[in-house]
Amino acid sequence: MELFNNGNHVCAVFQDLVTGEAVQANQFFISDHGHAALIDPGGELTYSGLFLAMGQYINVKELNYIVASHQDPDIVASLNKWMVGTKAKVVVPELWERFIPHFTRPGKTAGRIIPIPDKGANLELGQVKLKALPAHFLHAEGNFQFYDPISKILFSGDLGANLSPAERLDEPARRLKDLLPFMEGFHRRYMNSNKVCRLWANMIRNLDIEIIAPQHGRIMMGKAIPEFIQWIENLECGVDLMTQADYQVP
Amino acid sequence: MELFNNGNHVCAVFQDLVTGEAVQANQFFISDHGHAALIDPGGELTYSGLFLAMGQYINVKELNYIVASHQDPDIVASLNKWMVGTKAKVVVPELWERFIPHFTRPGKTAGRIIPIPDKGANLELGQVKLKALPAHFLHAEGNFQFYDPISKILFSGDLGANLSPAERLDEPARRLKDLLPFMEGFHRRYMNSNKVCRLWANMIRNLDIEIIAPQHGRIMMGKAIPEFIQWIENLECGVDLMTQADYQVP
Repeated sequence: MELFNNGNHVCAVFQDLVTGEAVQANQFFISDHGHAALIDPGGELTYSGLFLAMGQYINVKELNYIVASHQDPDIVASLNKWMVGTKAKVVVPELWERFIPHFTRPGKTAGRIIPIPDKGANLELGQVKLKALPAHFLHAEGNFQFYDPISKILFSGDLGANLSPAERLDEPARRLKDLLPFMEGFHRRYMNSNKVCRLWANMIRNLDIEIIAPQHGRIMMGKAIPEFIQWIENLECGVDLMTQADYQVP
Repeated sequence: MELFNNGNHVCAVFQDLVTGEAVQANQFFISDHGHAALIDPGGELTYSGLFLAMGQYINVKELNYIVASHQDPDIVASLNKWMVGTKAKVVVPELWERFIPHFTRPGKTAGRIIPIPDKGANLELGQVKLKALPAHFLHAEGNFQFYDPISKILFSGDLGANLSPAERLDEPARRLKDLLPFMEGFHRRYMNSNKVCRLWANMIRNLDIEIIAPQHGRIMMGKAIPEFIQWIENLECGVDLMTQADYQVP
């Protein structure tokens, strides 16, 4: 599904490549003037489907970047295949730079990792600069979101993830209430604390966002965007909710 | 290196299987009366070496459990190979049950995952029950340590990890001060908050521990154990240290 296309700049999402017992995951493709990046390409389940689907936009072997918001298997467990099948560099949080090579055979990532420092970075892709925004502890300790200033899409990773029914995945959510039953439990357990939710909300509020595109489930548009930011700002989660009862010898 | 061996019960650590640009990682083997588990077997880099090394103890195809403390690539990115090469079940935090299949080809984990509930569990292995102790947010949101009541070893995962020099890896640390230069930065950034450090310390203090065996670096014995528990209990880390300066649009 294309989220944006002005001829020179394309953003697309793939939502139905994961099958079986694994959690549904979205993969994102951005190209600008013939240069292309794949955000959170996923694990062993998505490689072949993505490779084929991207062929309509680019020569996949020439892919510029594999971008990983963090180190989880549903994010980038397919890394070895991408390292073998393309010339792409892999863009990852500096915090996970030495963990990511565990996905690959020896030497496959040597000289091909672009680490994102904790403060974030601007990533050149064709004529655009993608912004890597710090979203640490939401959920991974080292974690980035990506903002595309052309399409005004925020690729929000696990923040905003919703385990919505498969048949509605391609339908943007325009009100948060349609997503909450599918996102609240996940955010309470996997997001690390209200403190970092507030820091993130403060950072993001003044950004001009048309779409929030999370790594799982439906994308958000319109009123759902400010509603989500307000909701997350007030969410108690993660370590906020842990007590001694959760840390007992079984 | 064997950490314990009374004839019927063996605990061994493998410390030198990771090569190249990836972070050093320890893999642990436990067998009891012919039943065996591999804790945090690692990524693509360790599979062949482990398979060979375990052959001196068991018929590796009959391995009972692959145990993953959490979902990181240095923990269990080799999962697909273990699912193909052995009959083992994979024991993982319930929180990551649907993420782990992203490491494998479709269907490889179907019917073979034993999820550990958030409260922990006792895992039968031969005549022993290994305790899966909650260590959530240290660092992963869903994370377990494993305690072996026969050898009295606590397999502590990333907690206690130290990036010690390679030539000293096989030397147990008996005082915490020998490890602190190699562990402090990691714990401050990757562990999630002092609150969960305190909850963990309260839980662990009354357990009879001979060895703390972390997933990276040297193991701890003797005085280093109470010194480590006291240090971690007082550590400010993770979200404690985050401020708005860390969450800025780059």
